[in-house]
Amino acid sequence: MSDADEKLALIRAALKQSRIDAYVIPLSDPHLGENIPDHWKIIPWLTGFTGSAATVVVTHSFAGLWTDSRYFLQAGTELENSGFTLVRPGSQAPWDYSDWLADNINHNGRVGFDGRIISVKDYRKLKKRLSIKNIDILTDCDLLSGIWKERPPMPLSQVWDFPAGFAGKERSLKITALREEMKKRGIGRHLLTSVDDIMWLLNIRGNDFPYSPLCISYALAEETRFYFFTDKRKIPSNLASEFDRVGVEVLPYEEVYAIISSLSDGKSILINPSATSLSLYNYIPAGISIVEDISIPSVMKSVKNKTEIENIGKVMVKDGVALTKFFWWLEQNSCAMPLTELSLSLMLEKFRSQQEEYIGPSFSPIVACNEHAALPHYSAAYGGDSAIPENSIVLVDSGGHYMGGTTDITRTISTGNPSYKQKKDFTLVLKGHIALAKAKFPHGTRGCQIDMLARQALWDNGYNYGHGTGHGVGYCLNVHEGPQSISPAENRTLLEAGMLISNEPALYREGEYGIRTENLVLCYLDEETEFGEFLKFDTVSLCYIDKSLIDRSLLTKDEINWINNYHSEVFEKLSPFLDEEEKKWLKEKTEAI
Amino acid sequence: MSDADEKLALIRAALKQSRIDAYVIPLSDPHLGENIPDHWKIIPWLTGFTGSAATVVVTHSFAGLWTDSRYFLQAGTELENSGFTLVRPGSQAPWDYSDWLADNINHNGRVGFDGRIISVKDYRKLKKRLSIKNIDILTDCDLLSGIWKERPPMPLSQVWDFPAGFAGKERSLKITALREEMKKRGIGRHLLTSVDDIMWLLNIRGNDFPYSPLCISYALAEETRFYFFTDKRKIPSNLASEFDRVGVEVLPYEEVYAIISSLSDGKSILINPSATSLSLYNYIPAGISIVEDISIPSVMKSVKNKTEIENIGKVMVKDGVALTKFFWWLEQNSCAMPLTELSLSLMLEKFRSQQEEYIGPSFSPIVACNEHAALPHYSAAYGGDSAIPENSIVLVDSGGHYMGGTTDITRTISTGNPSYKQKKDFTLVLKGHIALAKAKFPHGTRGCQIDMLARQALWDNGYNYGHGTGHGVGYCLNVHEGPQSISPAENRTLLEAGMLISNEPALYREGEYGIRTENLVLCYLDEETEFGEFLKFDTVSLCYIDKSLIDRSLLTKDEINWINNYHSEVFEKLSPFLDEEEKKWLKEKTEAI
Repeated sequence: MSDADEKLALIRAALKQSRIDAYVIPLSDPHLGENIPDHWKIIPWLTGFTGSAATVVVTHSFAGLWTDSRYFLQAGTELENSGFTLVRPGSQAPWDYSDWLADNINHNGRVGFDGRIISVKDYRKLKKRLSIKNIDILTDCDLLSGIWKERPPMPLSQVWDFPAGFAGKERSLKITALREEMKKRGIGRHLLTSVDDIMWLLNIRGNDFPYSPLCISYALAEETRFYFFTDKRKIPSNLASEFDRVGVEVLPYEEVYAIISSLSDGKSILINPSATSLSLYNYIPAGISIVEDISIPSVMKSVKNKTEIENIGKVMVKDGVALTKFFWWLEQNSCAMPLTELSLSLMLEKFRSQQEEYIGPSFSPIVACNEHAALPHYSAAYGGDSAIPENSIVLVDSGGHYMGGTTDITRTISTGNPSYKQKKDFTLVLKGHIALAKAKFPHGTRGCQIDMLARQALWDNGYNYGHGTGHGVGYCLNVHEGPQSISPAENRTLLEAGMLISNEPALYREGEYGIRTENLVLCYLDEETEFGEFLKFDTVSLCYIDKSLIDRSLLTKDEINWINNYHSEVFEKLSPFLDEEEKKWLKEKTEAI
Repeated sequence: MSDADEKLALIRAALKQSRIDAYVIPLSDPHLGENIPDHWKIIPWLTGFTGSAATVVVTHSFAGLWTDSRYFLQAGTELENSGFTLVRPGSQAPWDYSDWLADNINHNGRVGFDGRIISVKDYRKLKKRLSIKNIDILTDCDLLSGIWKERPPMPLSQVWDFPAGFAGKERSLKITALREEMKKRGIGRHLLTSVDDIMWLLNIRGNDFPYSPLCISYALAEETRFYFFTDKRKIPSNLASEFDRVGVEVLPYEEVYAIISSLSDGKSILINPSATSLSLYNYIPAGISIVEDISIPSVMKSVKNKTEIENIGKVMVKDGVALTKFFWWLEQNSCAMPLTELSLSLMLEKFRSQQEEYIGPSFSPIVACNEHAALPHYSAAYGGDSAIPENSIVLVDSGGHYMGGTTDITRTISTGNPSYKQKKDFTLVLKGHIALAKAKFPHGTRGCQIDMLARQALWDNGYNYGHGTGHGVGYCLNVHEGPQSISPAENRTLLEAGMLISNEPALYREGEYGIRTENLVLCYLDEETEFGEFLKFDTVSLCYIDKSLIDRSLLTKDEINWINNYHSEVFEKLSPFLDEEEKKWLKEKTEAI
């Protein structure tokens, strides 16, 4: 019996013992964020699949994995001999695991879950879907702990102080502001489950998660007390005494369950149903009034303060310098040595790591050549690592965490003579990027109202892209951070001055190439008129845009001015940190069109 | 004791007898649509206020009326000596009657309502608002019937056949299509409460409501039976036998309650909680599974069929001819006789009524001069009926019902030499109008995603307007018809080919003037590409746009082309129906800029 078959057999034995018809494993952890510590990487261990989105269902006769289209190729390879079937749209199984369960589990059947790693919101959705067949959902099923022998331990990295000089506001003042907001809304307690909220509030960072400087923890804010639940061994003594000073009580991580279950006064508790695990939610005593909403710190931290904004400006220069050096190096060496997507990723990381106060990559970089670039979330590590041929379109989407903020930037360049079609596509995407970058809109506007600015030039030609245009960006936290977005999807969050957000229209030609141009923009108050306040965006990312891909005849005068002004700014801000050769090269790259 | 005081005293006596602390009267009827028969015009009878939006609250010591800002002036006058206070934002009372009730009614108090004229949705909102004080809501309180002695009877107008040549589809086929959709969705019954849904489905019209050719009625569609609840005396014999032939059973209007309360099988019933009265809803037996959604006919009728689209084209010519003749007449006579807003309204109606197959105005026309035009819903009848001075800005928003469809069009003209500011404002509004008219967008787009097209030129200047950009338009039904809209507000309805919708950006300069340019546009499938289906709009309204208000220097070449093409089409389609003088005049009005 192979290793894979043995795991499946063990799970099925456990299914039998628990009288469960199907066991569902999501790719998530108790904090339900984007990046997951190894301890919770059950799906890679069980199936071999390493993509970032998946759900697994195991029954007595079936073992299937659901992921999204960007991972089909990779999953096909990785699932070979795993005993797991990749479920794809168009295959005979329904294209959603909850539909599959509703179709395949009998009336009055039993489906098992580890309630620690499913959100209240997702649980409710599943519950509703399965209620038509009166299927029971068991939510305290941890079938894995007994089976996964060499499971990585819970991470135990040190928490570190994030100085107020970078944070812009003392932790005690942030806690006070949180309590004021709670009081204003009549909320007695606020359970914090998203670790980036807690890091932001306490001015700390950690190293428990890949790509995000976060520490596994919970927090509970009350009117007078504040609990921080984490492994005490993670807290250095200087921080421990500081916490003591400002009234942050450190309790063991697992004690959050005991504290929550012992709540007994009449005070309400605010939780975010999308970020709170069902298990933890179920510990809230029946008498406690639960208020459901996004967390207060998630709203507070989405508006960057003055210090943060200043630091973001400095970080953008560093990141721009690293990118410029990288692209200069690429152009010098593209013929001299055999380059691949992976080697470029490593080189780019090298240039970033030369910058002061650099912490690490903010996500797994995408360096994708030609047809690979047509996959919006291509990963060279699992996609075959193509060499870069001459006359290529290369898409580089990467970012870094610095003490002064987080970056996320995409450039698409040509390494030869682009075709008319490539130039037209690139220019249409650029027109969308510029339209959003120049937008002026009244306070009260939601992202979905202005998303089309980034698409209009594409739409006019019958083109489109299948993802959102902009996501919020954290400040040395998660590179994807809510609650704001610019996307066709409805999002009730209003765009506010101080929000940092990406501007990344794109176009993907399946099997040919992909184009994406991404800068971060900072929202600011432009003016107040008799019609109210009006906001604009300041483009803060700094890197040249490949002029060899621009078809100038498709641009308006205003668009040409935007490009020339942007390029002037790029040169002005980056050139002091470049050597003479690089500077000369950047001068050419940023010369007016 | 005055008449007004006597009414209030009688209501207060009834309050006392029913042990109610506050009685709430909305301005609505059991069908919860926009226009209300006289029988349900309780608020005008009780308070003297004649505006189209109001709620009244009467307690033992207070009598207040809430309306929106467009009616403040009018309400101020009309409420004099009525005993009612106009509640305005900034006055001491909260600016929402439900907040007022929550503030002013004691814990465990009792609020009364006539559940026949409040929607399930509004009731739930109020219930939630008042639950914090455990206030009881009594929903079967009709305190008025005993007090209102000369109450107008329920309307008893004749129902008339709407021929399939205009409807484009036989009533029997519509009912079959409805049943197919119900079956597809697993719905056993569909209660229809919006009278325009019923008119559309049965290919009939009536005359029970002002401004909409509708008959007061309910309907209930089942798998094999179809009930139409209305006063049988309204049905002419030819229709009665036709109904018999196609299986439409006519039952007395009030019998809907008995039929609904007697439902006993396990079949589900679809209702629209925004269009179903609480009273009727409460008659649904407890065992019946209720599905809540917008009605199926409201979705079906929002997509116009081929016949309807052809007829709409013909109707737009008639309406354009009437408007052209009106504006020509206005220009000839503006100095010759003393014109007022009201006299212009009457004249416009005269020109429309000269058109074949004209039925009547689709709403109370707005003819507003200068500062009156700054009130988006100004009514000359109640606003003072200003004379039209020289050098005025005149806004004319009007529409008609014809057998072949319904129109709604706004033009703003200058009767003299407009100022630079007026021309700039007019041109910015026009730029928005053109941007939306020219829009191309993928299938799957919601109105809020493209609303900003109509605003961008205004936003760029720090301007805006406070209402939506586009509403759906019925087909010889209601001029405002859902479910589609183009507005900043979220509306899940996707824009679909065949939908008729208004395009009416505007700008209001308080105390000075207002500008609005409105055409109806018909959505159509433009092309299908590898990125999906793309839709566009065809502008169907036909009337010249006043060139004297256009600042050409603010327009792009594309915008100028749009105006010139539109004007060519206007002249080409309307001139065959004009006399020589009018034709010559329209030629000038539509000459290329």
